[in-house]
Amino acid sequence: MNGSYDKFSGKNIIIRLEMNVARRSFGEVATVISQAGGDIVAIDIIGTTSDTTTRDLTVNVTDGGDVRQITDALSNLSDVRVIHVSDRTFLLHLGGKIAMVPKTPIQNRDDLSRVYTPDVARVCLAIQEDPGKAFTLTIKRNTVAVISDGSAVLGLGNIGSRAAMPVMEGKAMLFKQFADVDAFPICLETQDTEEIIRTVKQIATAFGGINLEDISSPRCFEIEQRLRQELDIPVFHDDQHGTAVVLYAALINALKLTGKSIRDIKVVLCGIGAAGVACGKILLSGGVGELIGVDKEGILNADESYDNPMKTWFAENTNPKRLKGNLSESLVGADVFIGVSAGGILKREDVMRMAPQPIVFAMANPTPEIRPEEIEDIAGVVATGRSDYPNQINNVLCFPGMFRGALDCRASDINEEMKLAAAEAIASIIGERELNKQYIIPSVFNQNVVPAVRDRVIKAAIETKVARRIPRDFR
Amino acid sequence: MNGSYDKFSGKNIIIRLEMNVARRSFGEVATVISQAGGDIVAIDIIGTTSDTTTRDLTVNVTDGGDVRQITDALSNLSDVRVIHVSDRTFLLHLGGKIAMVPKTPIQNRDDLSRVYTPDVARVCLAIQEDPGKAFTLTIKRNTVAVISDGSAVLGLGNIGSRAAMPVMEGKAMLFKQFADVDAFPICLETQDTEEIIRTVKQIATAFGGINLEDISSPRCFEIEQRLRQELDIPVFHDDQHGTAVVLYAALINALKLTGKSIRDIKVVLCGIGAAGVACGKILLSGGVGELIGVDKEGILNADESYDNPMKTWFAENTNPKRLKGNLSESLVGADVFIGVSAGGILKREDVMRMAPQPIVFAMANPTPEIRPEEIEDIAGVVATGRSDYPNQINNVLCFPGMFRGALDCRASDINEEMKLAAAEAIASIIGERELNKQYIIPSVFNQNVVPAVRDRVIKAAIETKVARRIPRDFR
Repeated sequence: MNGSYDKFSGKNIIIRLEMNVARRSFGEVATVISQAGGDIVAIDIIGTTSDTTTRDLTVNVTDGGDVRQITDALSNLSDVRVIHVSDRTFLLHLGGKIAMVPKTPIQNRDDLSRVYTPDVARVCLAIQEDPGKAFTLTIKRNTVAVISDGSAVLGLGNIGSRAAMPVMEGKAMLFKQFADVDAFPICLETQDTEEIIRTVKQIATAFGGINLEDISSPRCFEIEQRLRQELDIPVFHDDQHGTAVVLYAALINALKLTGKSIRDIKVVLCGIGAAGVACGKILLSGGVGELIGVDKEGILNADESYDNPMKTWFAENTNPKRLKGNLSESLVGADVFIGVSAGGILKREDVMRMAPQPIVFAMANPTPEIRPEEIEDIAGVVATGRSDYPNQINNVLCFPGMFRGALDCRASDINEEMKLAAAEAIASIIGERELNKQYIIPSVFNQNVVPAVRDRVIKAAIETKVARRIPRDFR
Repeated sequence: MNGSYDKFSGKNIIIRLEMNVARRSFGEVATVISQAGGDIVAIDIIGTTSDTTTRDLTVNVTDGGDVRQITDALSNLSDVRVIHVSDRTFLLHLGGKIAMVPKTPIQNRDDLSRVYTPDVARVCLAIQEDPGKAFTLTIKRNTVAVISDGSAVLGLGNIGSRAAMPVMEGKAMLFKQFADVDAFPICLETQDTEEIIRTVKQIATAFGGINLEDISSPRCFEIEQRLRQELDIPVFHDDQHGTAVVLYAALINALKLTGKSIRDIKVVLCGIGAAGVACGKILLSGGVGELIGVDKEGILNADESYDNPMKTWFAENTNPKRLKGNLSESLVGADVFIGVSAGGILKREDVMRMAPQPIVFAMANPTPEIRPEEIEDIAGVVATGRSDYPNQINNVLCFPGMFRGALDCRASDINEEMKLAAAEAIASIIGERELNKQYIIPSVFNQNVVPAVRDRVIKAAIETKVARRIPRDFR
């Protein structure tokens, strides 16, 4: 799958270039770059002498372009010298993407004695006396651990804990930027279920919540379930529930558009991995009556037995008519297709078998189960996991507001009601008059999303009695 | 020992006070506060009406004062109303003392795709290909874990992991403020040696170094030793080595002042716990010939056997003349007393038995082995662990520069040579003409300390071949 993240496609590079301004015009340089497939997006002058200038050119290398082709073409120009080429993404990662900062400076002895010895001892003793005070007097108030074992990172697979770090750091950035949650990435050196559970329990003290990330199926189920039982802070496997929540939000709006009711629809869910199981659960919680799971074995049904206990669970709790067969057969008369499986497995003919106004959510990444352009004339609504098509189903819509809400009400758990509430909040952002085929789900940069999710999550937490604090705006 | 951190001594409070300005002068209020033992250090006007003002008074409650006495006295004044009283130290701790911040903002889709999916995948693959790149492309470059099990926190003892958090957060603040090291506090839910070792190994991925903190003896020795062997990043138990390094720095300068040579002195070290063992080791490394250890059992000597393996080690590696007896007897003719034991155990008569110009480092906290004023007329040099006497032996002089150096040269270990180098660097900050009885050790706020320690530590790391990168300024 690594090929999907080609080192030389769609990336920005920075070319440091010295040119003789008397003998060579910048227009000529720009033309050479364009012809080689580069698009100049920024220019910074670094220095000048009487006859030369040195510039940093930020160049977007388009899909048809190639970094080597651009630099070769530049090097062939006389009176132009390429000093070096660097990659903006790698430059952004130098030294990591997050930093830890003190909230108050320590400028003198007085400050030092208050945040550290001897005065800090009084704060320690207050927490020893009442351990609940850790939620007000330490970073537990606002800090989430982003924990991965590197076993199922993006579409890259089992790349290990060190290589997973950039993703977890990125996630920590998103937590802060979107919801002012302090998050810290912990990548584990083990992929053993029991070791992971034990380690997370040992280090939970500092945290008000645990976001599990990119842990492969089926271990992720056991790990999440056990940690939810054994810790008194929320544990949330984002690959499962983040996807499920946003999918469900998209479905709410797609059903509004197509005039169908969740109780009446037939849904085919393809790909019964971590995300698939969670999507199935939220659909059942939401009231879907006829849910059919399809995996490599074909339609899951209670007459068969499966090695993977989650597939067994799925077969037993869905498919009330005990349908059998393959994906194409499952889709006859279906109202909704949900794909969390593999690129290209859905065909136009399959969609033509579905009920009128079919809803197709093809979320496989980076290549969806079917390209939207293949079915735009026959589908009711189409969504994918990609940002270059309309209706992106993106976890970033869920986890920041979910944890903001959970931390603010000091939730002991993130339960099914809170997930449904988050989905309803996301769906509610798009008003009835705005809603259309191309716009069933808000942008991740829509600033109304996080506050709405937070509020609905807190309300659900209070109603289901997992909130241990009533935030001031709910009193 | 908790009594040493009395809730009502030497602390700042903030009194919010409403007064009728027509009927009551602020001078009267100030007088009442002074008489009750309070010292007004700041005044902020919060609001006014036609006849009242509301002020926040920051009041330092002196040792003789009492918060209740102050507020009672104010409440007894007519036309004055105390709205509330808060404690500055607790206010500073609300929500914790550190925050995690993104180094670059995520303002649009382009930023998002670079720090997160899909472009982050290229960085992950680069690290998967060459795991050493984690040191340049992730926070491992600059991040240290501050790890405690809460078993020996300050002078408070075994207060557990939650109550230890404020100290570890404070330590993280110091790392950042003094040496621009990003540190994250991890307090462990276990006090089992093997569990601690296992957990730290599992979470080491994110970190370029491990600072162990406030773990009780003798478990701290095994934990540090095993982690040093089994991890490829530096592991440093600050309670041991931080103290030892700064003590050794102080000794270097005290010997200069008294004109004695380290090879010729007799040193009595009292208190063979975590810090004591480390002090003993650095003194031996530094060349002290006659080192005598004293603990509750009296003088440690190789003719006896001890339950604690570190005491056995100590007895076998020190006391070449196999002296026996108690603390007073050990001090006959000694040049240096080093106390890391308990308050008040050293008497003036003991110091009178020592060689001329005795050096007394009484580092027990918060009460030193002997109060400096009791021996100022007979001692050559006196130092303590307290900030209210001259010559404070404070770990803050060591750990920031030590880790700055270790991270900058990507050290795989912090070895004995690096510790000696750090001590020499700290001692070198005080020039020969500045050096005097009251000034053998620089202030923690002396900005020359961290760069000097960093440079000497890197030099020692390169010489002993534990540096995996040569910093630019050393090439």
